[in-house]
Amino acid sequence: MQNIHDYVRTAAAAAKQAFYALSSAATAQKNAALLRMAELIKQHQADILAANAQDMAQAAAKGLDAAMLDRLKLTEHTVEGMCEGLRQIAALPDPVGEMDEFRLRPNGLQIGKMRVPLGVIGIIYESRPNVTVDAAALCLKSGNACVLRGGSEAFHSNMAIAKLITQALVENNLPADAVRLIENTDRESVGAMLQSPDLIDVIIPRGGKSLVARISAEARVPVIKHLDGICHIYIDQAADTEKAVNTAYNAKTSRDGTCNTIETLLVHAARAQEILPLLAEQYARAPKPVELRGCSRTLAILPDIQTATEEDWRTEYLGPILAVKIVDSLAEAVTHINTYGSHHTDAIITESYTDAQIFLRAVDSASVMVNASTRFADGFEYGLGAEIGISTDKIHVRGPVGLHGLTSQKWVVLGNGQIR
Amino acid sequence: MQNIHDYVRTAAAAAKQAFYALSSAATAQKNAALLRMAELIKQHQADILAANAQDMAQAAAKGLDAAMLDRLKLTEHTVEGMCEGLRQIAALPDPVGEMDEFRLRPNGLQIGKMRVPLGVIGIIYESRPNVTVDAAALCLKSGNACVLRGGSEAFHSNMAIAKLITQALVENNLPADAVRLIENTDRESVGAMLQSPDLIDVIIPRGGKSLVARISAEARVPVIKHLDGICHIYIDQAADTEKAVNTAYNAKTSRDGTCNTIETLLVHAARAQEILPLLAEQYARAPKPVELRGCSRTLAILPDIQTATEEDWRTEYLGPILAVKIVDSLAEAVTHINTYGSHHTDAIITESYTDAQIFLRAVDSASVMVNASTRFADGFEYGLGAEIGISTDKIHVRGPVGLHGLTSQKWVVLGNGQIR
Repeated sequence: MQNIHDYVRTAAAAAKQAFYALSSAATAQKNAALLRMAELIKQHQADILAANAQDMAQAAAKGLDAAMLDRLKLTEHTVEGMCEGLRQIAALPDPVGEMDEFRLRPNGLQIGKMRVPLGVIGIIYESRPNVTVDAAALCLKSGNACVLRGGSEAFHSNMAIAKLITQALVENNLPADAVRLIENTDRESVGAMLQSPDLIDVIIPRGGKSLVARISAEARVPVIKHLDGICHIYIDQAADTEKAVNTAYNAKTSRDGTCNTIETLLVHAARAQEILPLLAEQYARAPKPVELRGCSRTLAILPDIQTATEEDWRTEYLGPILAVKIVDSLAEAVTHINTYGSHHTDAIITESYTDAQIFLRAVDSASVMVNASTRFADGFEYGLGAEIGISTDKIHVRGPVGLHGLTSQKWVVLGNGQIR
Repeated sequence: MQNIHDYVRTAAAAAKQAFYALSSAATAQKNAALLRMAELIKQHQADILAANAQDMAQAAAKGLDAAMLDRLKLTEHTVEGMCEGLRQIAALPDPVGEMDEFRLRPNGLQIGKMRVPLGVIGIIYESRPNVTVDAAALCLKSGNACVLRGGSEAFHSNMAIAKLITQALVENNLPADAVRLIENTDRESVGAMLQSPDLIDVIIPRGGKSLVARISAEARVPVIKHLDGICHIYIDQAADTEKAVNTAYNAKTSRDGTCNTIETLLVHAARAQEILPLLAEQYARAPKPVELRGCSRTLAILPDIQTATEEDWRTEYLGPILAVKIVDSLAEAVTHINTYGSHHTDAIITESYTDAQIFLRAVDSASVMVNASTRFADGFEYGLGAEIGISTDKIHVRGPVGLHGLTSQKWVVLGNGQIR
């Protein structure tokens, strides 16, 4: 048998060949393949669920925790969700080939840009089998070939799904290798992907922080990644009380385990005495009561809460805990966010036009908001139709990554025989 | 004394702090600093030329070759070029803060994008002292702080220039650390930059292929790079003879050492018999006659030229040599370019609308052209006003990198108290 490294490189090389056919494929052909995938998955739901049951049994035997089992488990409902996702992606406009920004140069050249796929995208993920469908669909629609490396726990589920994806591609005269599932789940197969910049153009890790951190540390291929979500709401001196309380409550409690949930609340000193007790009361009555940890000035207002340490300002709790700090100015809030935040999503609550303008410009985050809950930071809420993840990187794409984030622009020069 | 690694990290951390002040700086303030730099450099031209003479003397003593000395040498003319570059960059529109793509969502949120600087840009370059000025100016205008690490050969020249840059920043109330020249030219200082993704957001190497290759291999920071320029002209079956001969001649001979010069000429079989002898005659009469290396079918038409080997299709000659291949179809030409090219710049010469459309879409290069010399692929010709380099990467930015290429877009969400 081939060694793992060669196997992965052979698969990636096949994907790269497939990319060239795929990049020029007609929109109708890609959409037909996506809709056919939805049909096939629906038709073969029983096979997929049986494969998933096999994975679940093995995972339970290995003693995986409940959260892991929950991410692994497929049901009729989640399978229908996959199919609906495919139909939605088929319905999105195709970004590939869009031309834009043309200018006429003095020498008569027309120079503009064309939106094009990136090439081969490597997706490395953990136990969620639905990523297999989502990632394949987004890559296909955006003209990219993909190499999918799912977790060992989901092996049988992923194989059952990938077989149907391949069938849909082939039935629509698209290259079978446009979506290549790596059928090896040893750690070495991830390493082989990370070390192949000649064959894979970008890697998108989907999973927990330790996976993402390891991949960024080892990759020789560019990575689009999501690390922390240490998001803030800053209640400005000019905040409307009701908007302040509602958004700060919502941004912590609507779901406490998501990356766009706030982890630190900043309150202008002039409003703390009024607003913090109102908020503390609401947080205490939440379905999952929120534990507050405050700076010394917060403790003077809310004496019963814990003291926040330096570490708290840097922590993504992913649970019902919120750090609270009183600041003396907008500038102090901005500095705190830029220093301790994760450049993900931060909001100001204010009625001041000027404070809003300053905050929007000065906060160095993928999403900056005025008078809105940070929980809106995702691809569906932003109208992207779908997302492959949320980038906390600064180059290429920031925030929710939809079809456009999986493309780039090349220059197009239209001449009439010009020489230089 | 501090060790080199700590010294570099301290400098980068200072640049990062400076970035936050710089990112919100007014356009007028940045322009005033740029114009002041031009004034100061002009006023202190004698000091700069004296420092450069010291570098030249040391370089000559070390036995550096003529090309290296040529890149190092400054004259009144090149100093004026630096000043003119500064004035041009001051005159360009400021991209930072531009808002775009706003859409109204059904819940009343206005969601759009704002163009923002990347953060701290590390520039690693070799012996050209003018890069110090160009890079500092482009970074400053685009709101980025920068850490500049020039070659040891240019140490005194760079120090003399950097001092004036700092003075212009301070005089205009911009942070002195916005442009930090690394005053250590050991290899270790490059390594320290490459290993600091927490402080440096992107690295742009400017120099020969070995420098760029080493930096990409070692960097833990994202790199925007230029590797090879293996560019092609494809003379299509439907080519106009005069345009074919003129562009293919110009794209090889106007300058043979630049990255946008063609290294391989592809000719449709139906036109080879007519066009190749005309071109061969022109190439032979060029000021620097061009050596042709052909495939076997080319040799049947031009029997006196050398045979091209597989290696020739992958070679960037950077000199008066051209590989020539006859192909049977547009598809074969596209496959050749995507397989052997460097995804830099490729042109088709054709009167066929459909062939042009297919070529533009299918060739996976940073610049794709119809009926124009590949030599036009640079930032000035594209109207960017200036360029910090040409990217052969596929993510973030492709082709000539101007001010926009040094920025990214963040999401802006304008609400009225919306919660999810």
